[in-house]
Amino acid sequence: MKHLDWRTLSSRSGPQLPLFEVRFDQVEHPTSGAQMDRLVLSSVDWVNLVALDTQGQLVMVRQHRFGIGGLTLETPGGMVDPGEDSRTAAARELLEETGYGGGRWAYLGAVQPNPAIHDNLCHHWLAEGVSLQREQELGQGEAIQVELLDTSEVQASVQSGEIRHALALSALARVYDLWPRPYVQDPAE
Amino acid sequence: MKHLDWRTLSSRSGPQLPLFEVRFDQVEHPTSGAQMDRLVLSSVDWVNLVALDTQGQLVMVRQHRFGIGGLTLETPGGMVDPGEDSRTAAARELLEETGYGGGRWAYLGAVQPNPAIHDNLCHHWLAEGVSLQREQELGQGEAIQVELLDTSEVQASVQSGEIRHALALSALARVYDLWPRPYVQDPAE
Repeated sequence: MKHLDWRTLSSRSGPQLPLFEVRFDQVEHPTSGAQMDRLVLSSVDWVNLVALDTQGQLVMVRQHRFGIGGLTLETPGGMVDPGEDSRTAAARELLEETGYGGGRWAYLGAVQPNPAIHDNLCHHWLAEGVSLQREQELGQGEAIQVELLDTSEVQASVQSGEIRHALALSALARVYDLWPRPYVQDPAE
Repeated sequence: MKHLDWRTLSSRSGPQLPLFEVRFDQVEHPTSGAQMDRLVLSSVDWVNLVALDTQGQLVMVRQHRFGIGGLTLETPGGMVDPGEDSRTAAARELLEETGYGGGRWAYLGAVQPNPAIHDNLCHHWLAEGVSLQREQELGQGEAIQVELLDTSEVQASVQSGEIRHALALSALARVYDLWPRPYVQDPAE
């Protein structure tokens, strides 16, 4: 689609940050030819998962998040290490953050966390029938409380706004019916 | 929750970037007392919307996104300007990006785009019965094609992965049934 396709003319590295490789791409507007610099935050893929224990309870984590400076209730997850596949990363994060493991696994798909800025994907997995295998194994930068929720508690926590991490909701929405629908009126009425 | 509550000891500004104010918070682990620096990308809130025209067709935008370096199909949206409320911002972005306006409006809630790093919210609005009011009014950094989708096309585009912007999906999932459910087996079976 020629009228939408920007051309990247050059790239230069930006300032050093943790978590991301900062890059500026010099780009050219497809029709006007105007040139400008655009920010890219490049990183490894992320992963999170909907983990259900042998009773069908959802295994969630409550933790302080430094961006918002407050607590979140969210799905276990983290970064896919270089050379790791997203399923291995999801199983590793689940075990480290919660001590749960095992179960039957299915891929739920991937989303672009924010394609305007980030170049990575967040992969979603479903693990059914997980069970407690050992104690949490937290990094020195983590303090995480495990919580088990049944379906009605998941829905209530979403609707109250207690769960509002976009990427956690993205995974959960593929398994649970989270919001009352339809809002939409039939235009014929 | 004392065992989860990190203390912020100090903050310092990081390098200058467009779109975000970069900050490093020096934080203290709630139980170990270990101190470390954590990155925060501070910004205004974002907004996007599910806009349905008088025939019930979804008004979407196709555009190049610089993070992924490729085209997306997504909901109209953008940044909430300082002093602006999210509904005004949504109506402004819809008009600028698509030329559509009017309609009946309802708030669909807000999500944290990524509470680990970002401090802002993304607000979701529903606008039913919008109609074409004028031509697009694009900034020099934009090239946007408007597309109208019916419900089956929305679902097909999500399931094929053509729509996979997490924040667009977050808005759409509050109005449309996007994914086949349930994946989950009853643990009693």
